[in-house]
Amino acid sequence: MIVVMEEGAGEALVQQVIDRMVEMEFTVHRSTGLVHTVLGGVGPEERIDPQEFEVMEGVKEAHRIMSPYKLASRHFRPGGTVVKVREVEIGGEEMVLMAGPCSVESKEQIRRCAEVVAEAGGKVIRGGAFKPRSSPYSFQGLGEEGLQMMREAADAHGLLVISEVMDSSQIPLMMRYSDLLQVGARNMQNFNLLRELSKIRKPILLKRGIAATIEELLLSAEYVLSGGNYEVILCERGIRTFESYTRNTMDLSAIPVVHKLSHLPIVADPSHGTGRRDQVIPMARAAVAAGADGLLVEMHPDPDHARSDGAQSLRPEQLIELSRQLKMIAPAVGRKM
Amino acid sequence: MIVVMEEGAGEALVQQVIDRMVEMEFTVHRSTGLVHTVLGGVGPEERIDPQEFEVMEGVKEAHRIMSPYKLASRHFRPGGTVVKVREVEIGGEEMVLMAGPCSVESKEQIRRCAEVVAEAGGKVIRGGAFKPRSSPYSFQGLGEEGLQMMREAADAHGLLVISEVMDSSQIPLMMRYSDLLQVGARNMQNFNLLRELSKIRKPILLKRGIAATIEELLLSAEYVLSGGNYEVILCERGIRTFESYTRNTMDLSAIPVVHKLSHLPIVADPSHGTGRRDQVIPMARAAVAAGADGLLVEMHPDPDHARSDGAQSLRPEQLIELSRQLKMIAPAVGRKM
Amino acid sequence: MIVVMEEGAGEALVQQVIDRMVEMEFTVHRSTGLVHTVLGGVGPEERIDPQEFEVMEGVKEAHRIMSPYKLASRHFRPGGTVVKVREVEIGGEEMVLMAGPCSVESKEQIRRCAEVVAEAGGKVIRGGAFKPRSSPYSFQGLGEEGLQMMREAADAHGLLVISEVMDSSQIPLMMRYSDLLQVGARNMQNFNLLRELSKIRKPILLKRGIAATIEELLLSAEYVLSGGNYEVILCERGIRTFESYTRNTMDLSAIPVVHKLSHLPIVADPSHGTGRRDQVIPMARAAVAAGADGLLVEMHPDPDHARSDGAQSLRPEQLIELSRQLKMIAPAVGRKM
Amino acid sequence: MIVVMEEGAGEALVQQVIDRMVEMEFTVHRSTGLVHTVLGGVGPEERIDPQEFEVMEGVKEAHRIMSPYKLASRHFRPGGTVVKVREVEIGGEEMVLMAGPCSVESKEQIRRCAEVVAEAGGKVIRGGAFKPRSSPYSFQGLGEEGLQMMREAADAHGLLVISEVMDSSQIPLMMRYSDLLQVGARNMQNFNLLRELSKIRKPILLKRGIAATIEELLLSAEYVLSGGNYEVILCERGIRTFESYTRNTMDLSAIPVVHKLSHLPIVADPSHGTGRRDQVIPMARAAVAAGADGLLVEMHPDPDHARSDGAQSLRPEQLIELSRQLKMIAPAVGRKM
Repeated sequence: MIVVMEEGAGEALVQQVIDRMVEMEFTVHRSTGLVHTVLGGVGPEERIDPQEFEVMEGVKEAHRIMSPYKLASRHFRPGGTVVKVREVEIGGEEMVLMAGPCSVESKEQIRRCAEVVAEAGGKVIRGGAFKPRSSPYSFQGLGEEGLQMMREAADAHGLLVISEVMDSSQIPLMMRYSDLLQVGARNMQNFNLLRELSKIRKPILLKRGIAATIEELLLSAEYVLSGGNYEVILCERGIRTFESYTRNTMDLSAIPVVHKLSHLPIVADPSHGTGRRDQVIPMARAAVAAGADGLLVEMHPDPDHARSDGAQSLRPEQLIELSRQLKMIAPAVGRKM
Repeated sequence: MIVVMEEGAGEALVQQVIDRMVEMEFTVHRSTGLVHTVLGGVGPEERIDPQEFEVMEGVKEAHRIMSPYKLASRHFRPGGTVVKVREVEIGGEEMVLMAGPCSVESKEQIRRCAEVVAEAGGKVIRGGAFKPRSSPYSFQGLGEEGLQMMREAADAHGLLVISEVMDSSQIPLMMRYSDLLQVGARNMQNFNLLRELSKIRKPILLKRGIAATIEELLLSAEYVLSGGNYEVILCERGIRTFESYTRNTMDLSAIPVVHKLSHLPIVADPSHGTGRRDQVIPMARAAVAAGADGLLVEMHPDPDHARSDGAQSLRPEQLIELSRQLKMIAPAVGRKM
Repeated sequence: MIVVMEEGAGEALVQQVIDRMVEMEFTVHRSTGLVHTVLGGVGPEERIDPQEFEVMEGVKEAHRIMSPYKLASRHFRPGGTVVKVREVEIGGEEMVLMAGPCSVESKEQIRRCAEVVAEAGGKVIRGGAFKPRSSPYSFQGLGEEGLQMMREAADAHGLLVISEVMDSSQIPLMMRYSDLLQVGARNMQNFNLLRELSKIRKPILLKRGIAATIEELLLSAEYVLSGGNYEVILCERGIRTFESYTRNTMDLSAIPVVHKLSHLPIVADPSHGTGRRDQVIPMARAAVAAGADGLLVEMHPDPDHARSDGAQSLRPEQLIELSRQLKMIAPAVGRKM
Repeated sequence: MIVVMEEGAGEALVQQVIDRMVEMEFTVHRSTGLVHTVLGGVGPEERIDPQEFEVMEGVKEAHRIMSPYKLASRHFRPGGTVVKVREVEIGGEEMVLMAGPCSVESKEQIRRCAEVVAEAGGKVIRGGAFKPRSSPYSFQGLGEEGLQMMREAADAHGLLVISEVMDSSQIPLMMRYSDLLQVGARNMQNFNLLRELSKIRKPILLKRGIAATIEELLLSAEYVLSGGNYEVILCERGIRTFESYTRNTMDLSAIPVVHKLSHLPIVADPSHGTGRRDQVIPMARAAVAAGADGLLVEMHPDPDHARSDGAQSLRPEQLIELSRQLKMIAPAVGRKM
């Protein structure tokens, strides 16, 4: 912790801060400059909010110098993490395509999706069984029946399954049907849920909240890692800004930043990131060019009649075409697909 | 629903949109202008996302004309809602002060808080028993023991109790000890939790998420109202913006806006809204001047040794002084305190 | 400047940073911790961007410890600045009301405005002669003729005049007619203009840009102060956020923050801050309760026929009523009006 | 213009709105629904702010249905605009690389830059002669001398020159030395400057302001186009959001959005968009993959000793490597480089 005193802060104020630091179990180094006195503290930084010092009289500002996350930091595993599920490696040389409908709606629908995903070279099928909807009057998902349908469709094409878990109570069900468990953007800071997920042994795909900083995303990953589940994949899916033409603003720079700060793989979701089918393809390409370890894309055999998120779902032929383009881009970033 | 076609969109494209609207059970009115054709649709707007139309060929833009919320709208109860708990009315003539520590830490601490809150003219004591913390290494609350301590302290001074419920499983416990149940900003869109709270018969104080629009806040209230719990109090506690000097930016204009759009009372939380003790007092005054129905303020007998949020907690004498100032401001907005 | 090295950064990397700091004329103090090495540098901080260090290999982060502004800081004049124009003091005990139309439109209009402003206890009349409009097809102002009309109207009621200067070339004209020169939000970082204004001897009211941090606002003030014009008044008028119900989000916490960081007075403009007449009154009250040194409010004798900004202009009777309320609130913050 | 009346708004209120619309020269179509009355108006929409109606009693909301810009809209020139300067086409099949230092510092520096830009396949050299700096104490540029140096260096390698014009008074100078004139993000709404630039006959590269919506960017382009200068190139360079790890958040989705809404070419500036050298390369690749018509990149022969923006400038070998990668990506979006 570094505490910078205000210009002209007298000895009594400096001493007061030192006393408080010592009381909090910091070892304090003082350096007195011409203008500012600076106090450096070695101690339990992860538990102390720098604002505790900033509201003290005579203090100009305080900075944490150790990252509040440890297990999620690049330093913990410099070589990077590769999450492996059966034959599929996320974070390795291959850029992994995951696609499927927003919600599982019927046997026929999900079967057709699996067929298209496999044809496009995808390795994972996605689909929601429980839908968090901002209006209480919207379609809420098929539940377990939907998971069964998706599992069958996936198995028929050798695909993995990923689905969103909205609540701790859904974990056992998900463990039965799903290979990867997705935590939605709205649950990124549902710490009870994260703690429960830290105890299981299946990979977690953790989506960034629309108002979460990259540091907060890594702190949420830390919750899962610190409980013993080391298989965490992060996901950029757009943040909320003043621009309203797109539903969210995809922050693609989060991809190189996460690769610098952390060893965890990061994928991108251009469907939620933009909210509009006509922008999904360019932003999917851009994410791969920025270095994403994978893509999570919504696709529907008949988006005009989708029960949710139709506006942002690709048509089957669009997914095939996207895949063709991605295969050209991947080598430019030293990857294959 | 209003769908505006692009300049020059041909008859075939217009017909395609009309067909889709009819299929969705809208009754369609067409008006052909010099430049734009406009389609007005009466139908199940609350279930349809305008973007479904915006991605169709030839469509310039689409607007929902009915509010996606109904029970939360001012039109539903033009006279406004007053939430009454024992003698205390929130949304009535009196501006209600609620204060207390971030976390209940000990019997002594919470007793002293109750004493100060009562002295300041407060009617409700607040305090957390289960703490959502962004770091897994921070203090997580005393649980039921904390609730018991707070109940006793409140009863000794004739105060009501408000505490945060983080998960459906905590509802029964909260029902025993707490008069009002608070839903935190991170849970504003935890729809499972909202649905459970819609079934109980105690008032809910629903905090605005840091990235939530006012419309989304009202939609979340709708979840609770639509299940039959009509006692909802909204709370503005700051939104996330680019300004980093304060932890959040309090959006005080949300107060008059909510009063215009909805019949529900709205209170302000300047402690989380600013994150710094030195700004809590001016922003608390400002919230009352803007017309807030109440205030939720963090106060601690010894903030320097608080186990959480010390930097934003008022000292006892600061709460007393704030109360004195508020009593001068309330009459300017036609209220008393 | 404080530079924190990454965990495990070797001696060669540390030395490279030290060499670079010395080359930039910093005196360097090194403190080697268990985990991190921290380098403190005393030197020309105001000219060096901390990111220069952050992109160096082995560096975790860098922080500036001296404020990049000096003359604008509270430390420079702890007692605070009072800008005095004739009998009017801004930043003193009195909360100063400034009001008037968006644009001067006619002799009759501006006369009526002056009458109402005086009746409401206002001390300054505002009005635009040159209008920056985001569409090239909108009304652009009456120019010098408008200034003349406003000057006459003001003199008839003993009011001061404030008007916006959009370009250096308009300064001589403004010097003739206006008592205070306003710099609009879009020009807050028009450094050429600021430099020219630093050479004149009339007070400048500097509006915060919609995407400007408080620190950037103070840096822009520094441009004016550093050229020798010490009479600068700051103005909070809303920042751009994701909330779209209001045109901007007023950041009222900027008022106490500026009072803490700087000696300059700060006023609030709730008309541009909200963009809607029905929110101007509550936000004006809130600004005064938060401690604003004055208010800048749009008012029009007939807002329905205003040539610009009618939607956010108060009607005359609304200004009178607002003034009545403000007189009740001012004493709660130790002020009069 | 579409005006939606509130549920239950009576006949008198509806009539009042109709009268106001007629007075503003709208032709009004009324459609009375079960719940809402909707008024459609054909008339001078570009001059009327929808909020004029929204503040009227009984009005729920108002929407503009015609774009406020005309000449900048895709509809005006569906085939798209190609800006041609000598042999270089921006907006055509080729993705155009523009690179160079933040500021021209010396003959030697700019010569070396030109050499590297040419080697990397770039067509345009960039460099600032007048620098807008947020601190008055920073380096402000070499002025005309810098422009001369850059012109010579460019000519030696057959490159075009682009430089920023900060003020109308600099236009004649720029016309002499520069092939394209850049308007910086801070000047995007400097309407006086835009109007002057609309009268010249050289292409304008207009940068998006950090708080500007895409619509506002197009409106600013409209200022230039409406004065008769049809050669406008837009530039995405990052918007301001809550994320603070990067200086700005690049909104790459603006690229496909601009291509949909407008016929103007759009390039990306990943240097200002990220502020950090280590993110420039991934974001440059991503911009091309998203469909950008060109790139504007900062490069310096010795970034550690650059007089401005060193932290975001690429080293020469990094520009060469970037160019190699871009040549692989361009064909995936149907372009060459």
